[in-house]
Amino acid sequence: MTSPAYTPSRAVPHKNVPRWDDEADVVIVGFGIAGSCAAIEARNAGADVIVCEVAAGAGGSAALSGGEFYIGGGTPVQKAAGFDDTIADFRAYLMMAGGPGVDEARVDLYSREGLAHYQWLQDQGIPFKGTYLPGKWAEPPTDDTLIWCGSEAAWPFRDAAKPAPRGHTAQAVGRGSGKMLTDVLAKRVHDVGARVRFNARVLCLVADEQDSVQGVVVRIDGEPKLIHARKGVIITTGGFICNNDMLRQYAPQALAINAMPITGGNDDGSGILMGISVGGAVTHMEQFFVTRTTFPPESLVKGVFVNEQGQRFINEDAYHGRVAQYAIRQTHGRTWMLLDNATFARPESLPGITIAATGETWAEVEAELKLPSGSLQHTMDAYNRDAAAGIDPQFHKQPPWLQPLVEPPFAALSFSLQDYPPVTFTLGGLVTLPTGEVLDATGTPIAGLYAAGRAACGIPRWGDGYSSGMSLGDSSFFGRLAGKRAASATR
Amino acid sequence: MTSPAYTPSRAVPHKNVPRWDDEADVVIVGFGIAGSCAAIEARNAGADVIVCEVAAGAGGSAALSGGEFYIGGGTPVQKAAGFDDTIADFRAYLMMAGGPGVDEARVDLYSREGLAHYQWLQDQGIPFKGTYLPGKWAEPPTDDTLIWCGSEAAWPFRDAAKPAPRGHTAQAVGRGSGKMLTDVLAKRVHDVGARVRFNARVLCLVADEQDSVQGVVVRIDGEPKLIHARKGVIITTGGFICNNDMLRQYAPQALAINAMPITGGNDDGSGILMGISVGGAVTHMEQFFVTRTTFPPESLVKGVFVNEQGQRFINEDAYHGRVAQYAIRQTHGRTWMLLDNATFARPESLPGITIAATGETWAEVEAELKLPSGSLQHTMDAYNRDAAAGIDPQFHKQPPWLQPLVEPPFAALSFSLQDYPPVTFTLGGLVTLPTGEVLDATGTPIAGLYAAGRAACGIPRWGDGYSSGMSLGDSSFFGRLAGKRAASATR
Repeated sequence: MTSPAYTPSRAVPHKNVPRWDDEADVVIVGFGIAGSCAAIEARNAGADVIVCEVAAGAGGSAALSGGEFYIGGGTPVQKAAGFDDTIADFRAYLMMAGGPGVDEARVDLYSREGLAHYQWLQDQGIPFKGTYLPGKWAEPPTDDTLIWCGSEAAWPFRDAAKPAPRGHTAQAVGRGSGKMLTDVLAKRVHDVGARVRFNARVLCLVADEQDSVQGVVVRIDGEPKLIHARKGVIITTGGFICNNDMLRQYAPQALAINAMPITGGNDDGSGILMGISVGGAVTHMEQFFVTRTTFPPESLVKGVFVNEQGQRFINEDAYHGRVAQYAIRQTHGRTWMLLDNATFARPESLPGITIAATGETWAEVEAELKLPSGSLQHTMDAYNRDAAAGIDPQFHKQPPWLQPLVEPPFAALSFSLQDYPPVTFTLGGLVTLPTGEVLDATGTPIAGLYAAGRAACGIPRWGDGYSSGMSLGDSSFFGRLAGKRAASATR
Repeated sequence: MTSPAYTPSRAVPHKNVPRWDDEADVVIVGFGIAGSCAAIEARNAGADVIVCEVAAGAGGSAALSGGEFYIGGGTPVQKAAGFDDTIADFRAYLMMAGGPGVDEARVDLYSREGLAHYQWLQDQGIPFKGTYLPGKWAEPPTDDTLIWCGSEAAWPFRDAAKPAPRGHTAQAVGRGSGKMLTDVLAKRVHDVGARVRFNARVLCLVADEQDSVQGVVVRIDGEPKLIHARKGVIITTGGFICNNDMLRQYAPQALAINAMPITGGNDDGSGILMGISVGGAVTHMEQFFVTRTTFPPESLVKGVFVNEQGQRFINEDAYHGRVAQYAIRQTHGRTWMLLDNATFARPESLPGITIAATGETWAEVEAELKLPSGSLQHTMDAYNRDAAAGIDPQFHKQPPWLQPLVEPPFAALSFSLQDYPPVTFTLGGLVTLPTGEVLDATGTPIAGLYAAGRAACGIPRWGDGYSSGMSLGDSSFFGRLAGKRAASATR
């Protein structure tokens, strides 16, 4: 190895490799949830596996998550709670949630196999209590399993698929069960005998002249080491929300909103760049998840969002991430949540939220927000009239959340970007088959290269359609497939 | 050459080339406006040039254009018409028009050199009458030069840069002077001695193991021929609006709106794929220009656009392409232009436009459109009240276009997607330096490879900021730079 200037964007030619320092059938880059599931399945298929993780421990960004898996089609928990969700409805929801560039093959497979996947997660040791928590939650504050975690009951999704709760949360009391479940999976990875290298940054791929991937260069203890992957390399390095150069190039809007990244710290896009370095195609790179959790408490869902034109712009009962997508597109990124005395609360996620205006009438609030004269008054008159009749002809907000806001004093909570920065992560990534095989621009698999999780573009690929649990669900399921496929590769 | 399966997505290895069939210093792929300007400059710099064009004649998609160049900073035409446009204002407009991912280096150069470039275009023989046509036009119906061709006078652009008309139109009576000007440039390409191959489809690049581009494989008379490029290959093949596979991968929204492509027929993305095949990075691939020309006649600018919530959503005096971007994002893509008897007209571009509703009152129109009760009535009451006072507190439409719509009968022209499909082309492409050098994912130039025009991502890269003339201006100017740079390359 002569050149020290390794970059994920340039693979080292195989012919320049004098000797390998180590080898395995399958080398997995990244020990988050996708990498964990890939490692387990590859080992179960008999492959010798090395997992390289840049951090000192397992879990990646999944460890920061709420621990929800988006799964439907009639799970035991759904049935026990009285929901007769079907695979067809589950599929229909995912098709709409995927947006105009939905990956139908992925959706078909995931919706068909969701039930079995839920069992598999339990088989690995992830506990699910099996109980249903009614109401509107971003994550369960309890150790319950099943919650409404997307836009299922909201327009327009409710018209495409019969609503059912599909968020299946790993059992841990309180929010953020991601760490618990990634710990369970990491232990399983050790138990099945995968070899794990922590503090091991994969610098670049090693590929032959036909871009067939042969291994990786990984920095361990400050030294570049060459690891041969006899069957293949699986990239599970996460997205690129920590890489400002990539954001500028691919998702400038995600930078422009000045959001906080949701990341374990290593979503640096390096795996995506490694895929590109051997001809991997990318897709949906401009798409990102963004949110500001507007609830709990759920009374806030009864609030009304307006922009600086004094107009509503969304049904407020949609998934909080969908509301946020619409909010950041409003003029100057300025929006407010309007509440009356009966509904007033502060979001649990931002108890110090800015109260931008208060008033004894909506006209006073309108004036204090400097909205166009009469605009807010009209919006609230129309909303209150319709809500009293149980309808929302503009945006089809559903009856449970339609409550006239007529009890003074009135207040406007500022969701303007400068007051309440959103949180975000990227959704674009390498183009792959459901099996994880990374495709080049001709749609041909690149020999020896696989990807899953947010390094690949998976089921969650449209910010407007994202629901909680989609990334864990996709990453775990397609991580498994990539592990199986790589383990069975012959070359 | 053993394999017949050439694809732009895979370069032929140089070592597989037994002999070259032809050679030149610079090989240019595509004979549209970018290719023409590149050829002229490369020849002027002393390079031997071959231009390969897949069509039977020159001009590409530029030949279908209105023949406008977006140029400012105080051109003789601007000055003669009494506009004191400055380079600073020209630059400020372009910076805003570039959106969150604006390419500042390109904008700096183009705004500084715009005046000289306008002279250069004339030096090539393109006639400009030098006269100003006041009013609101998509293209001059006359042979005049200068028109308002963007959002210069509209909010928010007018706050960022002092408004001035910047559309400089090549002289030809009537619309569509693109064909005339590309003919002039094509003649110039012949006159300076570039060799042109028509009906010549470039199938792929030839590159060595370091991805240094050495030439192209081109199909001429049904046979693949190998052309050596001693100094470099310049890709000027246009965008990818004709390539549904690429649209699905990179710009699914452009497919979803079911628009008509604006193209000479060969914007097949092949040049972008060729760039990717040797490691070229791409950017802004999801962005597209879209429009439905709402004017002339300019009285239509006095109309009001509403969505199916009965809300306005844009200042209607913005550039028609910006209005269209906002319109396609409204719920179900349904929007209407509201007019009264005093302003009523049909757009010249769609004289058979669907009149979705008429009425003696706005309430009647509201009912006929099945808008939420009272919504349109309120919107028009507020608009008319404010317009009478010469203000638009919601969207800052400017006074010349603020006229109360109070004279019955009233009408709603349907701009809903199903009634009035928009037209579109893509804005994303290869990442290049202003000199045309194509960059890889590390930001390093790829030896021997250049790109300009819509195969590169240039100044026009944000649908919301596009203005007429930006693509011709960018393609001609940066085409020239690519030609100069390639001609001066040493290797």
